[in-house]
Amino acid sequence: MGSKGFAKDVGDLLRVGRNFHLGDVDPAATPGFSGDKAEGKVHLARRDIVLAEYQERLYAAGRDGDAPSVLLILQAMDTAGKGGIVSHVVGGVDVQGVHLKAFKAPTDEEKQHDFLWRVERELPGPGMLGVFDRSHYEDVLIHRVHGWADAATIHRRYREIRDFEQAVAARGTTIVKVMLHISKEEQKRRLLARLEDPVKRWKYNPGDVDERQHWDAYMDAYQKAIDMTSTPWAPWHVVPADRKWYARIAVLELLIDAFKSITPDWPEPSYSLERERARVLAS
Amino acid sequence: MGSKGFAKDVGDLLRVGRNFHLGDVDPAATPGFSGDKAEGKVHLARRDIVLAEYQERLYAAGRDGDAPSVLLILQAMDTAGKGGIVSHVVGGVDVQGVHLKAFKAPTDEEKQHDFLWRVERELPGPGMLGVFDRSHYEDVLIHRVHGWADAATIHRRYREIRDFEQAVAARGTTIVKVMLHISKEEQKRRLLARLEDPVKRWKYNPGDVDERQHWDAYMDAYQKAIDMTSTPWAPWHVVPADRKWYARIAVLELLIDAFKSITPDWPEPSYSLERERARVLAS
Repeated sequence: MGSKGFAKDVGDLLRVGRNFHLGDVDPAATPGFSGDKAEGKVHLARRDIVLAEYQERLYAAGRDGDAPSVLLILQAMDTAGKGGIVSHVVGGVDVQGVHLKAFKAPTDEEKQHDFLWRVERELPGPGMLGVFDRSHYEDVLIHRVHGWADAATIHRRYREIRDFEQAVAARGTTIVKVMLHISKEEQKRRLLARLEDPVKRWKYNPGDVDERQHWDAYMDAYQKAIDMTSTPWAPWHVVPADRKWYARIAVLELLIDAFKSITPDWPEPSYSLERERARVLAS
Repeated sequence: MGSKGFAKDVGDLLRVGRNFHLGDVDPAATPGFSGDKAEGKVHLARRDIVLAEYQERLYAAGRDGDAPSVLLILQAMDTAGKGGIVSHVVGGVDVQGVHLKAFKAPTDEEKQHDFLWRVERELPGPGMLGVFDRSHYEDVLIHRVHGWADAATIHRRYREIRDFEQAVAARGTTIVKVMLHISKEEQKRRLLARLEDPVKRWKYNPGDVDERQHWDAYMDAYQKAIDMTSTPWAPWHVVPADRKWYARIAVLELLIDAFKSITPDWPEPSYSLERERARVLAS
């Protein structure tokens, strides 16, 4: 079985442009990929190796403390597959080069600070792949849906996020922002599946059903957040996610593109090869 | 090709007992394993799946915030293969359940605190596998070799480490301490190999040769540290590491044993299945 691959640049297909409407995106679509699920899995296995190679090379460059980095920001409704992206896409690269942070409800200490304080502390170092499972976007998503912050505050946060991400990008971090987009019907199927399977039951959280009641408000909040924070230095990508296998290869390709544009060649040694060879031999 | 597996419990074979002498350990040996390198690799692939299953189950138990955890502490001379253990053994489990920390020379902030301060902050949470690539043992190893701390201070640190690890274990963390033990000759081969291969050259650090000059002093420091900090709650294991494939399957088995003894069954739901099914269906 071959792998048909992508017909076009995935970034171009999934990057949010002007007049973007979330409602126009079909969560069951597979933009750019003509293959089926089996072909998608072959694609994943084949291209994960490519990502791993880039990542190792970027990590090597980071040894000297002065190298770019990549930050993947994952946002989505519950059950959309953030965890699967982390396990099956990020999981394919060397864990030594990954800095993964799952942001939960803020702790008491975190609440004492600005909403970006805890995020700043988790940014990837030189040569690293940072992964945010949820992020500072919760402060303009769930906060907006539940009215935990007033409209003026939310509006100020959009600007603070833009400025923050601009500063992060300027320091050499390529930001890849992804919204995994599932349909409300698919979420229902997945919630029921978690209840049916004894091995998945622990993933079921009754709170997810509470949030589900606010589906439309969440879609509005995502639309607004995407409109207000899609920038040249940190554009949003909306990835159809009703088909898990598609979402995984799409995010994989977005990561490969990000690495490709910044990963230098294997670093030249900063020492004299001849001299070191002699030192080792004499030791 | 079959996998012969281990004849005996690896923990029993590698755990340090009374009157342990580091000099008696053959770094090229493969205690308990009768197979060769190829069989070792088969073993690794087969048993990594077992570890991943335990880890997922422990992670599930950790969802409710009250579950045990495992902490793997890796110490070794340079090039002994800590990184390979992390990539190839730890890399086989879901990255979401791993908290990896590579301890480097302490930062200015860390130097303002007790040597255990930065370690305490990196302990694994409930359900997690923590991995320390180097650790608080550097404070009784390199510090002893270079005389950065006087004998009385080093001696006090042994006790502080014992007490600290006892408290960590009492909180529900199974501590697996591993010294990867390579020979001085094998280190020379590996250093030369790093210099020869353009893709490995970035891993070569001239400082490793400086430390190599203190080989005997390091062996003394390891012997002393092992004597002073092997406890019932956190025993040391000395793993022969001249054969990378052996070290990997040995550490893998030590981890499986640690998980096996603490991993509960899949957690029972804390909610009513019937009620939740109805809520989802109505939503």
